[in-house]
Amino acid sequence: MLTINGTRLISRITELGSVGLDSEGRRVRLAASDADRAGRDLVASWMEDAGMRVVVDRIGNLFGIWETEENRGEAPVMTGSHIDSVINAGRYDGCTGVIAGIEVVKRLQEAGVKTKRPIAVGAFTDEEGVRYQPDMLGSLTYVGGKPLEEALATVGTDGTVIGEELARIGYAGTAEPGFLRPCRFVELHIEQGPILDAEGVTIGAVEDLQGISWHRLTIRGRQNHAGTTPTRLRIDAGLAAAKVNVFLRERCSLPGSRTVATVGTMALSPNAVNVIPDTAVFTVDIRNPKEEQLQAEEKALFDYLRELERTDGVTWSAERLSRFAPVPFDQGIVELVEKAAAKRGLSCRRMTSGAGQDAQMLARLCPTAMIFVPSVSGISHNPAEYTRDEDLIAGANVLLDVMTEMSETAC
Amino acid sequence: MLTINGTRLISRITELGSVGLDSEGRRVRLAASDADRAGRDLVASWMEDAGMRVVVDRIGNLFGIWETEENRGEAPVMTGSHIDSVINAGRYDGCTGVIAGIEVVKRLQEAGVKTKRPIAVGAFTDEEGVRYQPDMLGSLTYVGGKPLEEALATVGTDGTVIGEELARIGYAGTAEPGFLRPCRFVELHIEQGPILDAEGVTIGAVEDLQGISWHRLTIRGRQNHAGTTPTRLRIDAGLAAAKVNVFLRERCSLPGSRTVATVGTMALSPNAVNVIPDTAVFTVDIRNPKEEQLQAEEKALFDYLRELERTDGVTWSAERLSRFAPVPFDQGIVELVEKAAAKRGLSCRRMTSGAGQDAQMLARLCPTAMIFVPSVSGISHNPAEYTRDEDLIAGANVLLDVMTEMSETAC
Repeated sequence: MLTINGTRLISRITELGSVGLDSEGRRVRLAASDADRAGRDLVASWMEDAGMRVVVDRIGNLFGIWETEENRGEAPVMTGSHIDSVINAGRYDGCTGVIAGIEVVKRLQEAGVKTKRPIAVGAFTDEEGVRYQPDMLGSLTYVGGKPLEEALATVGTDGTVIGEELARIGYAGTAEPGFLRPCRFVELHIEQGPILDAEGVTIGAVEDLQGISWHRLTIRGRQNHAGTTPTRLRIDAGLAAAKVNVFLRERCSLPGSRTVATVGTMALSPNAVNVIPDTAVFTVDIRNPKEEQLQAEEKALFDYLRELERTDGVTWSAERLSRFAPVPFDQGIVELVEKAAAKRGLSCRRMTSGAGQDAQMLARLCPTAMIFVPSVSGISHNPAEYTRDEDLIAGANVLLDVMTEMSETAC
Repeated sequence: MLTINGTRLISRITELGSVGLDSEGRRVRLAASDADRAGRDLVASWMEDAGMRVVVDRIGNLFGIWETEENRGEAPVMTGSHIDSVINAGRYDGCTGVIAGIEVVKRLQEAGVKTKRPIAVGAFTDEEGVRYQPDMLGSLTYVGGKPLEEALATVGTDGTVIGEELARIGYAGTAEPGFLRPCRFVELHIEQGPILDAEGVTIGAVEDLQGISWHRLTIRGRQNHAGTTPTRLRIDAGLAAAKVNVFLRERCSLPGSRTVATVGTMALSPNAVNVIPDTAVFTVDIRNPKEEQLQAEEKALFDYLRELERTDGVTWSAERLSRFAPVPFDQGIVELVEKAAAKRGLSCRRMTSGAGQDAQMLARLCPTAMIFVPSVSGISHNPAEYTRDEDLIAGANVLLDVMTEMSETAC
């Protein structure tokens, strides 16, 4: 049974993780920055080392393509992820998937394996969306979800334009996004959540990706003196917002619920110790892997807000900030992940991706799924982000098996 | 039956209300400011007009003392309130009590009434506490609750020292605080709450003043990704804070509860849409007219926080910001208020002061109570603060009767 070179995999993750440290020692590799260029240069050199042809498209997506005389012309199978990072990032997020993809190709070559299809490894631009919004901009544009010229004109939080910055760092390519239409796509990624670690499971066979519903809610009550206003005459906007938070948790705690909901931001006005708040502005993040259930949660929220009008006397308004439907992944690839894990004696469970991923964009083009490996304590987007070496190696071996299988299968 | 001059009362409230408008037209008469001096000059002139001797003590409390050859040497009866204001204030808060007190003396003189005791009217320094903390600084110092030198050294929010500012505006007097020890004290004030207005009652016979307990609470949970963290693995500090808010309201809604509680401020950290808050910092304002009940509410709050440690996994800490025990007023004076209202055919109810008042300080010196008149819709500390003319006049007539009665009574 072929296995990847674990030492090389880990040392490359460490090496790429040392690129882009800022003056405070924080890992900051924002999209299309000088640090991103340094990371891309390293990744491109590893692609070449694995005998891959390096191609960059016009939105900066970086691909390594391994094809042989025998399989040239066949639709490739593709893997990949991203190497841009958040501010003060860990070393595993995104990079693991890109480096493991290159390792798969390198190992197949070293072993003299010839696949029936070309294999492509992508490093997609601006997955994190820290410098340029929306996130997953490179893969979104690659699958035709955003017009290229519009994507290139995206202005960053620092006032720069991504198209100009890509040209500046030498990664404004000439290939049209979507130039390579994969037969299948699979992405290896750290879980960024606590489930695998908490359950002691090594491999997540990711069968879907949650839908996301973000709203900013404004509840209005009546400003009054906290000492002189009897309880029965109060219209407390902050209390009503608190009730919404408690209500959402109660819904999420219902038996069988797969919903998660978060009130992450809150601002009371006038925000004084002895004044009953007349306004509460807060965000609600609701996620569920099923569209009809996500819609049911949204309806329950708005029904409850209408109930608060009657019971608490408040008024309210809602602004939709973001809405993505859930993405179901391909059952066939999910089964390949399960089979590979079983073959290698690795524990495995099906799961849902709680975060957004490049794979959700690729799923618009072709059958797609993901492989997760455990994040210790679920910590991510943080220098304390950690995945054990043996889990990284296990995930890369499963990726090797799944890529090999996919490359043998009809489109 | 003697009555005050309603036209004069109302026109003086209006006149004092026009003193201290800032460049934006807001009424701002902060303690020991130039605007405060202009208001004091006007009040002192009215005291002199009513045949009163004007005395200023070292913390700037301004008194008008009406004494005759016959009653000189007797302990005086006292009324009064304050004329300093909040920022963007109404015209009634405090001023009503000072102007009505002067009107009482003026009317007694005009009618040739000779009281058995001197009558004093006080305008106490810095009741609002906006510029110099704590609030009620003048009356607190007057009753010996704070050493004079410490009080004079109080540094304001603008960096000034109150002793220097009082000297600058010409109101650093020479009398020692407490120089005049009243036999009894009664204060007329607008309610600043909605009860009298909601019930259509004209006179509040204020029999006590709520105790106040302020805490700043910090609840700590665990920061995590809002998408990838299952409900059962969350420790959401914001949710726990919301539960505290809901818990407090449930306690206040118990049958027979006289507690009011308010969460007026709230800050979540990191305060991002898609991050479970690891910290919630918020204030709790709890008030009850009975000390043992206030203590029971505080205990219930802390018991509940300990329960949240177990049920929600959070930790917490509390910082006491302010704590005043309830102040019971003198039943004899409360009955005088009720009798005077009945005699004049005015509706009256006993009630609790929800706000802090100079009278609560004077209650340390002598039997004390208060008279409330309605605040329309309970609005106060706001230019929309409004009390109907007929209610102001009714309150001043009750004050006249109570002062007259008190001046006839043994100490």
